Amino acid sequence: MADTKVHRASTFAPVNIAVIKYWGKRDPSLNLPTNSSLSVTLSQSDLRTHTTASCSPSFPSDSLTLNGASQDISGARTQACLSELRSLRRSLEQSDPSLPRLSEQKLKIVSRNNFPTAAGLASSAAGFAALVRSIADLYALPSSPTELSRIARQGSGSACRSLFGGYVAWEMGSEADGSDSVAVEVAPASQWPGMRAVILVASAEKKDVSSTAGMQATVKTSSLFKQRVETVVPARMKEMEKAVQKKDFEAFAGLTMRDSNSFHACCLDTEPPIFYMNDASRAAVRVVDRINEAAGRKVAAYTFDAGPNAVVYYEEKDEGLVAGVFKSILGKVEGWEGEKGAAVKEAQVPGGTEAAVEKLRMGISRVILTGVGEGPIKTEEMLIDEKGETI
Amino acid sequence: MADTKVHRASTFAPVNIAVIKYWGKRDPSLNLPTNSSLSVTLSQSDLRTHTTASCSPSFPSDSLTLNGASQDISGARTQACLSELRSLRRSLEQSDPSLPRLSEQKLKIVSRNNFPTAAGLASSAAGFAALVRSIADLYALPSSPTELSRIARQGSGSACRSLFGGYVAWEMGSEADGSDSVAVEVAPASQWPGMRAVILVASAEKKDVSSTAGMQATVKTSSLFKQRVETVVPARMKEMEKAVQKKDFEAFAGLTMRDSNSFHACCLDTEPPIFYMNDASRAAVRVVDRINEAAGRKVAAYTFDAGPNAVVYYEEKDEGLVAGVFKSILGKVEGWEGEKGAAVKEAQVPGGTEAAVEKLRMGISRVILTGVGEGPIKTEEMLIDEKGETI
Repeated sequence: MADTKVHRASTFAPVNIAVIKYWGKRDPSLNLPTNSSLSVTLSQSDLRTHTTASCSPSFPSDSLTLNGASQDISGARTQACLSELRSLRRSLEQSDPSLPRLSEQKLKIVSRNNFPTAAGLASSAAGFAALVRSIADLYALPSSPTELSRIARQGSGSACRSLFGGYVAWEMGSEADGSDSVAVEVAPASQWPGMRAVILVASAEKKDVSSTAGMQATVKTSSLFKQRVETVVPARMKEMEKAVQKKDFEAFAGLTMRDSNSFHACCLDTEPPIFYMNDASRAAVRVVDRINEAAGRKVAAYTFDAGPNAVVYYEEKDEGLVAGVFKSILGKVEGWEGEKGAAVKEAQVPGGTEAAVEKLRMGISRVILTGVGEGPIKTEEMLIDEKGETI
Repeated sequence: MADTKVHRASTFAPVNIAVIKYWGKRDPSLNLPTNSSLSVTLSQSDLRTHTTASCSPSFPSDSLTLNGASQDISGARTQACLSELRSLRRSLEQSDPSLPRLSEQKLKIVSRNNFPTAAGLASSAAGFAALVRSIADLYALPSSPTELSRIARQGSGSACRSLFGGYVAWEMGSEADGSDSVAVEVAPASQWPGMRAVILVASAEKKDVSSTAGMQATVKTSSLFKQRVETVVPARMKEMEKAVQKKDFEAFAGLTMRDSNSFHACCLDTEPPIFYMNDASRAAVRVVDRINEAAGRKVAAYTFDAGPNAVVYYEEKDEGLVAGVFKSILGKVEGWEGEKGAAVKEAQVPGGTEAAVEKLRMGISRVILTGVGEGPIKTEEMLIDEKGETI
């Protein structure tokens, strides 16, 4: 009787939100970036992907299901991840013939997000990190998170940073084959655990330009971009690593806001221009600026990815000054109902924000309260049963 | 009996809208720019300032009235213009003692715009150009427009370009005293008379940051700005002069849009970021991009000054393709009721613009149809009578 055993492994993987932004590929097929970047990994109790990878001789073909919907995995990016992982498994099998030949079996992968996909919440980063981590566990690969980050990067650039918790740098590297374009830990979450974030989710509006297409256009047409990648970001990376090491929130905040603006400036300098921020995003900028002015120091830092959502970082001790103001403004939208939301005390909205407050109320449909968190976590909660059926 | 004669001179002066933008002062007190710029002077039948300058021994003090309201002229900028002009008059009087001693008399200046002031329509450019030109005429100065542009520049940088009609460059110059920071004609209106513009006036929203304050902040804090002024603009100035000489609208349009975006990118890269464009502005960008795509060539070019209004340039022969689309979208707002507006044929709105059309209808309150026009024009229509009274 043939072997029909179903091997399984399950992982939770986090979202990360960059504070020094990744924008631009020097090699699109390998997802090699034009500059290094740095992110904060967010807590998985709020945002995470749960993925079970399984393989069995009885599976007819590789498959991936996300939130119940079958996904196309024939794309070069997913294929690159699968074939790299299989090849690592094959090496193990070759050096130890007692191991089952999992590399020859088809994979069945089932994934679920605990948040709405494609709401501009970096779901592809968590998705590819979970995919790579769960298959690596399934294959019992001895690879380090940094080694796996090289693989996840090929699926989605920013996914490489979701292999770690805490504060994570993606070093751009210089090798043509991308072997040194990997993620490394700058500091674990435990070193600066008080980092919090409130995410202001903008009312759904279809994104004009995908990140991949947008990046290519910027690299090709922006005349300011070269300055950003060659001069501006390298200096900021060093300063940001220092700010994280020293837990210097004011430095962290200044760099975070400047770099978000620099990234969106390069989008605007693209031909045709790319706009990810809308009037609600600009209102969030204005309110954060006024919160900081009123506090007399930088207590909040906004950053925007390739979409209108604002991610506002702050320190736990300043929750009232930051999340409290947004609760006063947006207390009626979804997201405050849990324990964390209830604990936030409403605070006075700084003056000079009347127009911004109105724009936020019109344009923000939900908030998510979160904070710095851990890297991928192995779990026994399986999304595929012992027979290979989706649970 | 003492001489009480009232000497008078009157001028109409035009607005200009830059296609290579002025943003940044290397010397704030002399209004010396960080880069050269280039503009199109707009027709005075649509937008102009009418100014009468007068002097008389009976006037008690210098005064300036704009649209019926008395203006403060004690500021350094206005004073610089007045004292430079007086000093030129004094030289004339010294070399020809038969001339009346107008330089010793007080000035009374009355000014009226045929368009709403401070709607972000470059009113200060027309205003200072009219002020300088009318006083120069009053004083019978032999100065050339370029010589007068050096004076007007000190009142408001972009005013120097309104001393000429047609296509005008403001050469940044290199002298510390600003003596070579002047406007020159690139081409007269008659050389490329078919240039038209439709201005989409955004619903009044108070400007966040004045141009002067904004420029200073950009120069001081933007890390991309240096690239713009040292590399990007010098190359574009040459290309734009060539495009105007060759009447190459496609080249003109590409440069115009890229440079507007580059300027606003530097505003966004400022700390704190400056936003002049709003959702309606971005909608105008989107519609122009789609008009060009649908036409298969660049028939329209948007540009935005320090405010949300879109100025869309096009050639007369393409009126239907450009103004026609905006008439279909915005036919109900003010501005189409005249002969020019009635002559515009509504045209089909290109697809993929549904959201943009809605944003334009919500955010644009008025259109102005105009085109390239002449420089300041001397007129006998006086705003001050022979007795020195405002008419």
